[in-house]
Amino acid sequence: MKDMLGREEALTVENARELLFKSINFSLPKEIEISIDNSLGRILSRDIVSPEDLPDFSRSTVDGFTVRSFDTFGATEGLPSYLNVTSEIFMGQQPAFGLRKGEVAKIATGGMLPEGADAVVMFEHVQIVNEKLIEVLKPVAPGENTIQIGEDCKGGDIILKRGHRIRPQDIGALAGLGITKIWTYEKPRVAIISTGDEVVPASNPLMPGQVRDINSYNLAGLVETHGGIAIKKGIFKDTFDILQSAVEESLNEADIVVISGGSSVGTKDITARLINTLGKPGVLFHGVSVKPGKPMIGGIINRKPVFGLPGHPAAVTVCFELFIEPVLKSLTGEIRDFHDKVKNTVRAKLARNIASSPGREDHIRVAIEQRNGEIWAIPVLGKSGLITTLVRADGTIVIPLRKLGLEKGAEVEVKMF
Amino acid sequence: MKDMLGREEALTVENARELLFKSINFSLPKEIEISIDNSLGRILSRDIVSPEDLPDFSRSTVDGFTVRSFDTFGATEGLPSYLNVTSEIFMGQQPAFGLRKGEVAKIATGGMLPEGADAVVMFEHVQIVNEKLIEVLKPVAPGENTIQIGEDCKGGDIILKRGHRIRPQDIGALAGLGITKIWTYEKPRVAIISTGDEVVPASNPLMPGQVRDINSYNLAGLVETHGGIAIKKGIFKDTFDILQSAVEESLNEADIVVISGGSSVGTKDITARLINTLGKPGVLFHGVSVKPGKPMIGGIINRKPVFGLPGHPAAVTVCFELFIEPVLKSLTGEIRDFHDKVKNTVRAKLARNIASSPGREDHIRVAIEQRNGEIWAIPVLGKSGLITTLVRADGTIVIPLRKLGLEKGAEVEVKMF
Repeated sequence: MKDMLGREEALTVENARELLFKSINFSLPKEIEISIDNSLGRILSRDIVSPEDLPDFSRSTVDGFTVRSFDTFGATEGLPSYLNVTSEIFMGQQPAFGLRKGEVAKIATGGMLPEGADAVVMFEHVQIVNEKLIEVLKPVAPGENTIQIGEDCKGGDIILKRGHRIRPQDIGALAGLGITKIWTYEKPRVAIISTGDEVVPASNPLMPGQVRDINSYNLAGLVETHGGIAIKKGIFKDTFDILQSAVEESLNEADIVVISGGSSVGTKDITARLINTLGKPGVLFHGVSVKPGKPMIGGIINRKPVFGLPGHPAAVTVCFELFIEPVLKSLTGEIRDFHDKVKNTVRAKLARNIASSPGREDHIRVAIEQRNGEIWAIPVLGKSGLITTLVRADGTIVIPLRKLGLEKGAEVEVKMF
Repeated sequence: MKDMLGREEALTVENARELLFKSINFSLPKEIEISIDNSLGRILSRDIVSPEDLPDFSRSTVDGFTVRSFDTFGATEGLPSYLNVTSEIFMGQQPAFGLRKGEVAKIATGGMLPEGADAVVMFEHVQIVNEKLIEVLKPVAPGENTIQIGEDCKGGDIILKRGHRIRPQDIGALAGLGITKIWTYEKPRVAIISTGDEVVPASNPLMPGQVRDINSYNLAGLVETHGGIAIKKGIFKDTFDILQSAVEESLNEADIVVISGGSSVGTKDITARLINTLGKPGVLFHGVSVKPGKPMIGGIINRKPVFGLPGHPAAVTVCFELFIEPVLKSLTGEIRDFHDKVKNTVRAKLARNIASSPGREDHIRVAIEQRNGEIWAIPVLGKSGLITTLVRADGTIVIPLRKLGLEKGAEVEVKMF
């Protein structure tokens, strides 16, 4: 669809996202086997199945005396059970003896229970008569103060599932099971192409009319934050041929291509034409009812998503969050649940009225502040072409398509940066 | 203080933490200058002051015609202003001309305004008569659709403060200002010493009575997650001399030393004796009213914090969160605000009754689930010696010291892993 100026009609965010996900033929990322030492934050490409029982022997969880629980039944402070200390368990060793009726052995936390023993009495509930004799002041149930064979997990149990992102305790569990190498997905690669005849590298001195590249730095950070590898291709002139070779090269080495900037009038059309020229299905949408970010282009070239982002820094962040982040997440192989979302969302009260035009989704940058124990979201106003408004903000709130604004005091959800 | 068994009396978490922070003489970490390309997540050691105005020329934020706003005053669709197109602005170049009364120039987003121009009319509000003449259908105010010199920031403005953790948009802003190298704090180093005669490396086959090292892997991941560098020293026998040399070596190369495990009866005392022997003030607390984690030791050896952690995996995580994480954060140089806390906290409803003993702070592992749009926290029950309960959990809830428990349906705050 085209509007009266011959431009494509803007889709809603929802429709654009639906179209994008419907059209992407996600293939699973490549696998790579890595050491658990470097696995923090990586995504499992296979289920982890426990190769053995954990623990593979019954162990004590306290310091005390290991007993046959039956021998302690009915014991009280007034009428304790008198039991014989026959030996001591050495850590990391299999006891060479078993417990017979009336016998106990000294044991420390983590010690292996001897044959015949089924519980441990803590030192606190014991009166030591002499080296060979103790009074047990309180009964223990079978299994008490022990971890039984396979109580942590059993051989064959699925410990962690494909698509899970590895956390510190997961590495601990893998180590505990003797699994020191795991199969994970390779990180998706995102090529970032900067365009704009006015854009120069950050290290360059500025000539009048020039600006330094902001967006490819912001984008590279966003890609890294969300589990991808950023490949900064550099800054290219706004011509079809130059951009074509940059995009072709990027398609060869990356899973997602992002063309950022291109603010001169012709470039938007060049980007769209390029996407349509280089492969199928080409441009999926050109223009989305969102502010900032309206001129966004989304397309697919031979199964690889390609995005054309408007040049304003705030628009880059919004378009990334709305479109690139979910695609990137899918390409990491992570099976998403709602945890990430709830973790990065903070409920707050809006500190002032915010107006919005109907028919577009408004993304408002906010700082958060604590006042009298409540969290408030303070809109950081400023044009979307400014980078410092993004720096002063802690996150974003969304005013939905059909709303005319939000009133001061309204409860809002802040998506934190 | 000692209890009736001759052990140190447990402090409350609050008191132990207060004692620890009062006794640590935090010195600022060393500085290191790094490229902004590798700065994501690093902590600034100096304020960032803008060296120049951003932008340093007035630029257009839309595609259209740049005008003298006065020439458009009163323009309507019925009575448009007729203005002369005298030239076009090229991107990245300083216009070689100025605008005189009645003149306009074609300009694209990001283009530099010529001398005399003070606003831009969007294409949407223009009727093109011919190449040399346009009708402006709507007036623009001075400054409209432009970013003025210094509007993003002014030379001398503090853009980012010392102690700030670098996010993607911050890197963008630095690049925009031409700042490609920044001073940051070096990451604090945390030495991790595993003890326990029963503990063997994760890659070893198990003999009866032995277990693989879980805690140093979990700890290393926690250290990395919170901005530190983990130095895994290995597994050491439970003897004073062997541990002494391991701790001495660790004090030389790390900012924090963590001794994990040591579950055999004697080791707890060895750890405490060692901390008291190696320097001042030595052990600050030995035993904290928290479950799991009660046998925790906290001390300082010549200004360096040293922790002795109980061997149970769940206790390791709790002790890390309560004591090591805040110390580590302080040593990163990050100036903490409440953002991290609110970001990692999720409000949920408790899915079942949980009992707790008064006089201790109970840390309960929970999984979170969404049911009918509400978030529920489901306690993951199991002994603190198990690692898989930590794997199944998404975070922790705390039952405070004086509470006897929490009822099903109670609102809880989940600290997410």
